[in-house]
Amino acid sequence: MNTENTAKKDERNLYLKNEDLDAAVEKYLALLSFDEQDQQSRFLPVTASRGLVTKEPVFAKISSPFYNASAMDGICVNALEMAGVDERHPKMLTKGADFKFVDTGDVIDEPYNAVIMIEDVVVTDDEQVSINAPVALWQHVRPIGEDIVAGELIIPAFHRVRPMDIGALLAGGITEIEVMEKPQVGIIPTGTELVEAGEAMAAGKIIDSNTHMFAGLVSEYGGEPNRYPTVKDDYGLIKNAIEQAVAENDIVLISAGSSAGTEDYTRRLIEELGEVVVHGVAIKPGKPVVLGIVRGKPVIGIPGYPVSAYFVFESFVKPIIFSFNHQTLTQERSIMAVLSKRLMSSLKHLEFVRMKCGRVNDKFVATPLDRGAGVTMSLVNADGILKIPKNVEGYEAGEMVEIVLMRPREEIENTLVSIGSHDVLMDVVANIIHKSRKIMSLSSAHVGSLGGIMAIKKGECHIAPVHLLDEETGIYNLAYLKRYLEKENVVLIKGVRRTQGMMIPRGNPKNIVAVTDLSRDDISFVNRQRGSGTRVLLDFLLKKNRIDPENVLGYTREMNTHMMVASAVKSGSCDVGIGVLSAANMMDLDFIPIGDEEYDFVVLQENLDDPRIQTFIDVLKSGEFKAALDQLGGYGLDRPGEIIRP
Amino acid sequence: MNTENTAKKDERNLYLKNEDLDAAVEKYLALLSFDEQDQQSRFLPVTASRGLVTKEPVFAKISSPFYNASAMDGICVNALEMAGVDERHPKMLTKGADFKFVDTGDVIDEPYNAVIMIEDVVVTDDEQVSINAPVALWQHVRPIGEDIVAGELIIPAFHRVRPMDIGALLAGGITEIEVMEKPQVGIIPTGTELVEAGEAMAAGKIIDSNTHMFAGLVSEYGGEPNRYPTVKDDYGLIKNAIEQAVAENDIVLISAGSSAGTEDYTRRLIEELGEVVVHGVAIKPGKPVVLGIVRGKPVIGIPGYPVSAYFVFESFVKPIIFSFNHQTLTQERSIMAVLSKRLMSSLKHLEFVRMKCGRVNDKFVATPLDRGAGVTMSLVNADGILKIPKNVEGYEAGEMVEIVLMRPREEIENTLVSIGSHDVLMDVVANIIHKSRKIMSLSSAHVGSLGGIMAIKKGECHIAPVHLLDEETGIYNLAYLKRYLEKENVVLIKGVRRTQGMMIPRGNPKNIVAVTDLSRDDISFVNRQRGSGTRVLLDFLLKKNRIDPENVLGYTREMNTHMMVASAVKSGSCDVGIGVLSAANMMDLDFIPIGDEEYDFVVLQENLDDPRIQTFIDVLKSGEFKAALDQLGGYGLDRPGEIIRP
Repeated sequence: MNTENTAKKDERNLYLKNEDLDAAVEKYLALLSFDEQDQQSRFLPVTASRGLVTKEPVFAKISSPFYNASAMDGICVNALEMAGVDERHPKMLTKGADFKFVDTGDVIDEPYNAVIMIEDVVVTDDEQVSINAPVALWQHVRPIGEDIVAGELIIPAFHRVRPMDIGALLAGGITEIEVMEKPQVGIIPTGTELVEAGEAMAAGKIIDSNTHMFAGLVSEYGGEPNRYPTVKDDYGLIKNAIEQAVAENDIVLISAGSSAGTEDYTRRLIEELGEVVVHGVAIKPGKPVVLGIVRGKPVIGIPGYPVSAYFVFESFVKPIIFSFNHQTLTQERSIMAVLSKRLMSSLKHLEFVRMKCGRVNDKFVATPLDRGAGVTMSLVNADGILKIPKNVEGYEAGEMVEIVLMRPREEIENTLVSIGSHDVLMDVVANIIHKSRKIMSLSSAHVGSLGGIMAIKKGECHIAPVHLLDEETGIYNLAYLKRYLEKENVVLIKGVRRTQGMMIPRGNPKNIVAVTDLSRDDISFVNRQRGSGTRVLLDFLLKKNRIDPENVLGYTREMNTHMMVASAVKSGSCDVGIGVLSAANMMDLDFIPIGDEEYDFVVLQENLDDPRIQTFIDVLKSGEFKAALDQLGGYGLDRPGEIIRP
Repeated sequence: MNTENTAKKDERNLYLKNEDLDAAVEKYLALLSFDEQDQQSRFLPVTASRGLVTKEPVFAKISSPFYNASAMDGICVNALEMAGVDERHPKMLTKGADFKFVDTGDVIDEPYNAVIMIEDVVVTDDEQVSINAPVALWQHVRPIGEDIVAGELIIPAFHRVRPMDIGALLAGGITEIEVMEKPQVGIIPTGTELVEAGEAMAAGKIIDSNTHMFAGLVSEYGGEPNRYPTVKDDYGLIKNAIEQAVAENDIVLISAGSSAGTEDYTRRLIEELGEVVVHGVAIKPGKPVVLGIVRGKPVIGIPGYPVSAYFVFESFVKPIIFSFNHQTLTQERSIMAVLSKRLMSSLKHLEFVRMKCGRVNDKFVATPLDRGAGVTMSLVNADGILKIPKNVEGYEAGEMVEIVLMRPREEIENTLVSIGSHDVLMDVVANIIHKSRKIMSLSSAHVGSLGGIMAIKKGECHIAPVHLLDEETGIYNLAYLKRYLEKENVVLIKGVRRTQGMMIPRGNPKNIVAVTDLSRDDISFVNRQRGSGTRVLLDFLLKKNRIDPENVLGYTREMNTHMMVASAVKSGSCDVGIGVLSAANMMDLDFIPIGDEEYDFVVLQENLDDPRIQTFIDVLKSGEFKAALDQLGGYGLDRPGEIIRP
């Protein structure tokens, strides 16, 4: 085992390189030549070709309009017979002999060659009209082919068919066109620990979600995903899977096993079956990617961590699919935003940081989300990506940075930004807002109550949820506003009363009864992060009970939300944690109340009229909100939504 | 008949209003309430939900990771037993008793609660390792729920499912979600003159292409199109069709018949079946739109001209589909560009002008395309839209204007802009470039040779195709460069020799033999626009033969391309026109040669190194190009692609 481990160390140094992203992409794409001669194509009805790419240029078969057509409602005449007509010399025309009534689109043919608008015709009786203006040959007549001339090019080769193209093709008499088959992308999930979503879970098992994300991205970018059954971490089995996938697809993705660990076979397999072009790119997350070529086809080893997997797909697989379809790779929209907190990054790699964005007081503010490669939710919750280039140490708080958007800018403009303490009720509010069909959403970052107050001070959020106990007065929140926000003109939006307490496993196996038990050496505790109101509460209680934090086992182990603490207790990785009753209920834990506290929202006076904040207040006052909290339990609602001035 | 026509006039004044676009949209959407309670939904496998919209918020069923997992390759230990370890006090550990080797992702459970990276372990032998640094409780361990905590919100209601959402949902143990059914959009083609693409054409027939474009747009924007059979212009039949469509759909579109003509029934029918909210909006093209409500559902009458139809769809139908799906309507990207020519518009309406754009000498240049409401190709060829607001007279040449893009900016950046004389060989070049898999395209506007020279002067294009005969010297092109571009440092890229001549119907029914025949009063001619080289050639010939243009019947009837002239001859709307042999061949016409001419390309010396122009030159020199021209016929290639300095 340890020999393997030392071997592993060598491999790590020996194999995994650190190439620059752009260089790696260029090097790889240059070696991949998609010759359209080899590319499959088929003939399709034009009406079924939307989004597909033409193999050949398409020329009109017939002209449109197909005949000389009246462009107006009016009468058609022979212009040559109308010579000399003007105001002084009007002319009386007889129906049938001199003219014919026509509507827009009617045929104009012999002996007629011009149209006079009905507005310019004086109708005397059923058979007679008179005109008093000159008539030009072919006036108000749409000539054959005015729109499309037979033989004219409608769309070129390698053109992605859009709805208006379909209209033009049909108008040009085309009913079938030759389109390229989408690139077939084989996706191989590998890993002995993998199970399919829905299957029974157990310790050591991981649900394979990445390959389904890949399938979605492949479809989105114009490919055809073919997902293969999961393969155990077995050299031979994975080898067979790759050989089959290469035979059946244009592009092959191998999920997980791309690093340099004992059971990471991708690199060695591609070397055996073909050629490894790049192993290891200087991006984070996503470093341990393998870019290979087997029988002329791209075979890519993608790391198993979900966020790494996403960025490797975006960086390498997306360009390959676009190149296969001969489409220009387009940049996503981006915005310039103020960075809300210092963001350091290694000089060794280009880092992709998922960011939350909001428009606060006429500027965009961007706050980094969890940077862990395993945190899928940071992708789901991201509004955009901040790229910290290699050789850049990072950015200071307050710097202007470019954010490549993952959500429409308009959605971000309509987002109410909440930074501060965490409570599950924020999810409740978010959903009531969403359900209300208002084009507005709520984004909440959990940095604790004090972090929220700082965010208000720095103008990075609209509201800051807080629950801060003033140890002297025993009063919540207001004291802190005076202390930290005396210059700012802030008010408090009344929230809820909620019950904090000790969360313990069902049946209280270790017989915990009071805060003093936290110092018992047979009890391991899990704490909340510094700056959170719950941490303040704990420290207050320890002090009151003369307990030295040194003697609380796990005092230094910090979690960011009530739910994560509850989850830690539930999992048995600790015996007790402090949090709100609603979280304990959701995790089916026992609960020993410590006391009630006030969970309110700080907001700048000047922002009170902001429609987003008004909506937020309306929700707090709604019956829907009350009903939802009653169901969660552990909340008291006195005057939610009421404005309190310090 | 005339009574109908007078009636029609009254109706026109009586009915068609001219409401502002924004006001009309707001007024209409306000009256349409899509109550999600009424909206159909269904449960789908998560893996099949991409692009669909959630009906309810989705909360995680299980935590991810599902267990405490090692975040590193290394060994796991019980941190409590490692107290006091540091460089001075290393500790020897025995496998099994004190530690276990783990790979990333392995389970960490009793008695272990911390991981030490393999790099920080000194492996002495198979059973013994030593460490020399302190170990924190739970270091390098991914706690249960670090990514997703059971019960946590993954995505809210009315959220459009993206690939990364699918990944997170599966990781959270969700296999099925409730999504809203797409809005069903009924599309009714009306018009006695309509035929399906592919059916036999005849004068008076029009291929129904609009409703297929609608179907494509509906799908693109998240709806489900249901196209109904074509209905003749019959009040009763259309009424039945509308009633059926309203019963079977959420939104109904009626194609054509939305104006105020004798056979435009849409408005009257909606009045009878429901309510007309708006008839006539101040937009061009697209004015005669009918916005109605029948049984609470939007029923929209869309004008028949293709371009009008497109803008009515974008202006009214798109927002309705987005609102139905509770999605934010996002703006397309736009660029600022220099307007290449004066553009006047009526104060009475907001006008949508289709524009060609290109990046020439570090600035975007925008040139208007045909403004006719019937010209589908102006949509297909457009790079973007210039909106000229109501109450704005227009813009002067050289003004900076905003162009809302219809093609990716990156594609426009890579476009070679050609403005000048028309020849079918430009299509040939465009396709060879496209086929070459170069990420570059050719856009050519046809404004005649002199127009091209002016465009070069104003820096609006990269190349200008010209064929201008100098009457004194009889030499082509060079003389004009000296005359018009003496200040600019221009060169000529040699093009082709081509044969100009008189295009006449097969068999030469009117026995035309020479240019002198053009003055015969039994012969009608069709001319090219002023500034075109062919026009210059004609005037030269008329002068030479002492023919007064006054005596040429149809001299004032101008067309913009060789193909349109050929098409006019083919259709019999004239007896003869002047153009190139290749066009005559494509239209299967007889041809009387007048003489050869030089068709070359003007380019600024400084732009010769532009990779786009280099590619263009390479194509001119290619065998592929020669082969294609040989097939067209009528071309001579001496030294195509050669650079000639005046």
